[in-house]
Amino acid sequence: MKIKLVSYSKDGERIVAIAAKMSRSRKGWDYHEKEMTDDEIETWIRDSITHGYWSVLEHSVYTFSIEGISRVASHQLVRHRIASYTQMSHRFAKPVDKYYKPITPPSIEKRGKEVVDKAYQDAYNYFYQLLEKGVPEEDARYVLPNGVNTNIVVTMNARELYNFFGLRLCSRAQWEIRAIAWKMLDEVKRVHPRLFKYAGPNCIIHENFIRENPITLDDIDNTVFISQRCIEGVTREGIPKCVKNARSILVSEDGVVMGK
Amino acid sequence: MKIKLVSYSKDGERIVAIAAKMSRSRKGWDYHEKEMTDDEIETWIRDSITHGYWSVLEHSVYTFSIEGISRVASHQLVRHRIASYTQMSHRFAKPVDKYYKPITPPSIEKRGKEVVDKAYQDAYNYFYQLLEKGVPEEDARYVLPNGVNTNIVVTMNARELYNFFGLRLCSRAQWEIRAIAWKMLDEVKRVHPRLFKYAGPNCIIHENFIRENPITLDDIDNTVFISQRCIEGVTREGIPKCVKNARSILVSEDGVVMGK
Amino acid sequence: MKIKLVSYSKDGERIVAIAAKMSRSRKGWDYHEKEMTDDEIETWIRDSITHGYWSVLEHSVYTFSIEGISRVASHQLVRHRIASYTQMSHRFAKPVDKYYKPITPPSIEKRGKEVVDKAYQDAYNYFYQLLEKGVPEEDARYVLPNGVNTNIVVTMNARELYNFFGLRLCSRAQWEIRAIAWKMLDEVKRVHPRLFKYAGPNCIIHENFIRENPITLDDIDNTVFISQRCIEGVTREGIPKCVKNARSILVSEDGVVMGK
Amino acid sequence: MKIKLVSYSKDGERIVAIAAKMSRSRKGWDYHEKEMTDDEIETWIRDSITHGYWSVLEHSVYTFSIEGISRVASHQLVRHRIASYTQMSHRFAKPVDKYYKPITPPSIEKRGKEVVDKAYQDAYNYFYQLLEKGVPEEDARYVLPNGVNTNIVVTMNARELYNFFGLRLCSRAQWEIRAIAWKMLDEVKRVHPRLFKYAGPNCIIHENFIRENPITLDDIDNTVFISQRCIEGVTREGIPKCVKNARSILVSEDGVVMGK
Ligand SMILES: Cc1cc2nc3c(=O)[nH]c(=O)nc-3n(C[C@H](O)[C@H](O)[C@H](O)COP(=O)(O)OP(=O)(O)OC[C@H]3O[C@@H](n4cnc5c(N)ncnc54)[C@H](O)[C@@H]3O)c2cc1C
Ligand SMILES: Cc1cc2nc3c(=O)[nH]c(=O)nc-3n(C[C@H](O)[C@H](O)[C@H](O)COP(=O)(O)OP(=O)(O)OC[C@H]3O[C@@H](n4cnc5c(N)ncnc54)[C@H](O)[C@@H]3O)c2cc1C
Ligand SMILES: Cc1cc2nc3c(=O)[nH]c(=O)nc-3n(C[C@H](O)[C@H](O)[C@H](O)COP(=O)(O)OP(=O)(O)OC[C@H]3O[C@@H](n4cnc5c(N)ncnc54)[C@H](O)[C@@H]3O)c2cc1C
Ligand SMILES: Cc1cc2nc3c(=O)[nH]c(=O)nc-3n(C[C@H](O)[C@H](O)[C@H](O)COP(=O)(O)OP(=O)(O)OC[C@H]3O[C@@H](n4cnc5c(N)ncnc54)[C@H](O)[C@@H]3O)c2cc1C
Repeated sequence: MKIKLVSYSKDGERIVAIAAKMSRSRKGWDYHEKEMTDDEIETWIRDSITHGYWSVLEHSVYTFSIEGISRVASHQLVRHRIASYTQMSHRFAKPVDKYYKPITPPSIEKRGKEVVDKAYQDAYNYFYQLLEKGVPEEDARYVLPNGVNTNIVVTMNARELYNFFGLRLCSRAQWEIRAIAWKMLDEVKRVHPRLFKYAGPNCIIHENFIRENPITLDDIDNTVFISQRCIEGVTREGIPKCVKNARSILVSEDGVVMGK
Repeated sequence: MKIKLVSYSKDGERIVAIAAKMSRSRKGWDYHEKEMTDDEIETWIRDSITHGYWSVLEHSVYTFSIEGISRVASHQLVRHRIASYTQMSHRFAKPVDKYYKPITPPSIEKRGKEVVDKAYQDAYNYFYQLLEKGVPEEDARYVLPNGVNTNIVVTMNARELYNFFGLRLCSRAQWEIRAIAWKMLDEVKRVHPRLFKYAGPNCIIHENFIRENPITLDDIDNTVFISQRCIEGVTREGIPKCVKNARSILVSEDGVVMGK
Repeated sequence: MKIKLVSYSKDGERIVAIAAKMSRSRKGWDYHEKEMTDDEIETWIRDSITHGYWSVLEHSVYTFSIEGISRVASHQLVRHRIASYTQMSHRFAKPVDKYYKPITPPSIEKRGKEVVDKAYQDAYNYFYQLLEKGVPEEDARYVLPNGVNTNIVVTMNARELYNFFGLRLCSRAQWEIRAIAWKMLDEVKRVHPRLFKYAGPNCIIHENFIRENPITLDDIDNTVFISQRCIEGVTREGIPKCVKNARSILVSEDGVVMGK
Repeated sequence: MKIKLVSYSKDGERIVAIAAKMSRSRKGWDYHEKEMTDDEIETWIRDSITHGYWSVLEHSVYTFSIEGISRVASHQLVRHRIASYTQMSHRFAKPVDKYYKPITPPSIEKRGKEVVDKAYQDAYNYFYQLLEKGVPEEDARYVLPNGVNTNIVVTMNARELYNFFGLRLCSRAQWEIRAIAWKMLDEVKRVHPRLFKYAGPNCIIHENFIRENPITLDDIDNTVFISQRCIEGVTREGIPKCVKNARSILVSEDGVVMGK
């Protein structure tokens, strides 16, 4: 799995802050553009998020190239509709051995490595047999495994990313899309730390809806949650551990971050 | 494949017509509701479509239950974002033999039946072996084939259906989603013949954008197209045959309509 | 203001419940359709909402005719993008005296009735003067007041309605769109009481995200909120009063419900 | 009216081209990123557009600050739902004289200047009288004219812009939103000439759906249209003149481009 932020609104944080401020002002862009300080940017972003003024976050946009994920994961990913996708076509993809790299879930890596290797190899052989019988690629691929690898280019704005992270960073999300989400979060936090400061699984998002002082992922250990339960049913006490558990998908058995 | 229209705006045609008329009038709903004749309904629908006033078609909505399609097809289907989906979860689905009915493309039915049967059986065996080793279902399914069967509930409005049909009734669309689209068209035409009278692949939609008198799928044989080419590159002369070819997916080798 | 539910998914509650159940089952629509009891419908709806499985609510859809609101309100309304609108065209509307009924806010009714009457009449006179000078209607209307009345047909699904209600039932919402929202809520609760049981301003929605047992608008007086504050900043203690205050827009000075 | 492109995907053209190419390839972003030539960018963009592969255009995104337009125009603008908006709040805007600059349509400028000036001034006086009587600003503004000025920040991607331009560059669009559209087109063509080469009113868009060699706005005078009529009903022969007419909104009486 390789996840790369290939394009984004360079001034995204500034733009979100100016837009938010303009909605409360009569002055035009040029004025605010010149006057807006770094401190103000932070404040406008924070206030927009803590007061549910999410629409201003839509003006900052991010494009990722996501490579080497399974079609199990991409099928879940594209269910997020407020986004743009361009996926490698599997209909016309010539079968070239070196590009056949189906994904193996960690649980199978541990418990069924040999089975999966054989299953993936057999499927590929059947695929070839069908091609040889004159079946077109787009049909022959029906015998390829669900785990087959794919590439996809994804564009989402910051608001949609918050929504996506809320659902997919969560421990209830399936491991692969969860790993994708955590990596995407890393990427956007690197370039826009202020804009994604409050991003996290829904337990954190919802906590901040009802809490006086907003918390972040970094505060997980030092926070007593007010929420009785998260939306998925985890109780107040269980939440911090659950979040850490969710995040652990990024780290392999040997402590190495996946996909690096 | 089983496609059933399970819910829709009963008065959809009337509602679209009233909405269109209200945008050109100052009178309220009750008045138009009472006065609107069947002839008028037909005219308002026709005029809205031939003048690109598509937004009024959004007020009529359709829900389908689509069962026994492959995840190849469902992955393409859910790329249509102006729609609502609820899909059978493959994460928690208990492996019950009688529900494992992966889809076989017609081309394989013809040329590789034995290969595919074996491929699908082997995949299922590997799946079981993984389960026995303690791999959870949501991971074990990575070895199941792309062709694995799924069910999905889909809601789209009439405008989105026009857009979906434009792309997916076309011969360039992959056979399975094409079959789904043609069956969905059958379903909606049955209940709302006036609203879907002009639905068809994009060659027809686009022809009607630039033509004085609109044509329908039924006119295919008696029409000289004005379009030099369709958007997919088929030339004027080739279009009627191409459309019939696209539609033939509904009919099996033996002349039987698929999935009935 | 006249708000009428003119079309909706008759079986909406059932359909939402079946869709939710189908995502956890391998059986098809016909089976669930037959087996689904009323109790089950209630449970599936409740569980979907309390666990944030909002997407299933999208399968139930509602069309309203909203008449006699101001363009101030309609401008805010159409900002909700996951919806369909057909609005009376003001470009081509012939100026007929009896249709000129601009909206007067309650605060002006009370404090500036004469001023507003004169202002609205003067504006109309200027409008006519412009028409007489040969200015087309679509331009002359620039001098008509913001409060000018309009009609609009609106279609939203149950999920979007929950989102819309969350924002617009709230006391922070502008009075007119708030009145619209409360009336729309009345309409949908009448036909689908189980589906809209948990609808309310965001203070209630968010409380239910983090609370073991969900509350409804009816519980406002007997509930100790867990939330420290609502997203708009009202403190725990202030919420119940704030909600009642928000709702009071429905009742005029004389205790009569508006627009009836 | 002041329209400024304040942010956009700097590499937008490149990104669209790479995404399109990746859907037909198995290689990853880094490879294409390095290999993609300027010629190729042009070809991939052209081919995507002429074959209706619009979704790739979504990866390039544009943010505009639009200042000094009327609420008549902004109300139409926000009907385009695949977009993001942040508008100056008129609820809390303090009444400061110098910011009250309602828009005067050209037709009134010519035929009713005195009437409109008086109408706008009277409305403002009534507004003030209401404020003095203790009516809150958000209600008092009901007497302000439809033509009242507003500012709005708008984000749209290239696909949505093509759709927006198709509808709003057209002579049937109301003059003010048409002027906005033509100016927005200028802005994006300046930075991404290859991506917006084929943008135009729907007569041109639709012509290119059905024509072998695509045309652009620049070819209007030297092109015999194949379309019998445009979607709005203008006949083949009338189209070029109609387009020039539509565009003339940019130029004032004295030959000066508006808003500069
Ligand atoms: C743990 C988990 C389990 C899941 N299990 C299943 C399952 O068994 N079956 C299944 O089918 N799906 C399942 N899903 C997918 C889920 O139902 C959503 O489809 C998916 O998460 C996308 O979320 P979304 O709709 O919020 O996102 P998006 O589609 O990106 O939408 C973003 C936001 O836009 C709004 N929106 C967009 N389109 C509409 C619309 N048409 N109507 C109303 N509002 C809209 C909503 O506010 C939404 O939050 C599961 C998801 C998770 C995280
Ligand atoms: C023959 C064929 C081959 C294809 N090959 C590929 C491929 O190789 N790779 C690939 O990734 N996809 C491929 N697709 C999928 C295609 O790119 C679209 O994603 C899919 O057809 C959905 O179409 P849509 O975007 O028009 O529909 P929807 O998502 O339903 O959208 C409906 C309409 O809403 C508007 N819209 C919705 N969301 C947006 C948005 N975010 N921005 C702008 N406008 C929006 C558009 O006007 C659109 O027409 C293929 C499709 C076909 C038919
Ligand atoms: C009290 C109040 C004050 C307001 N003040 C202002 C103001 O000063 N200026 C102003 O401009 N607006 C203002 N608004 C409007 C507000 O910013 C929203 O535009 C409006 O409420 C619609 O909300 P929505 O975006 O959630 O709804 P919808 O547009 O209906 O969207 C529904 C859901 O779909 C998703 N969604 C849809 N489209 C997108 C997208 N492009 N990107 C990401 N997610 C998307 C989101 O999850 C969203 O919740 C105000 C609203 C309220 C209630
Ligand atoms: C000359 C003219 C006259 C008009 N007159 C009127 C009038 O009298 N009354 C009136 O109400 N409006 C009127 N309109 C507005 C018009 O109906 C559209 O609402 C507006 O142009 C936005 O267009 P859109 O829906 O294509 O754009 P967007 O909302 O930006 O959508 C872009 C694309 O996404 C898809 N899409 C987005 N949401 C949906 C959805 N919910 N369902 C299906 N597809 C969707 C469609 O493919 C659409 O083309 C007029 C417009 C023009 C140009």
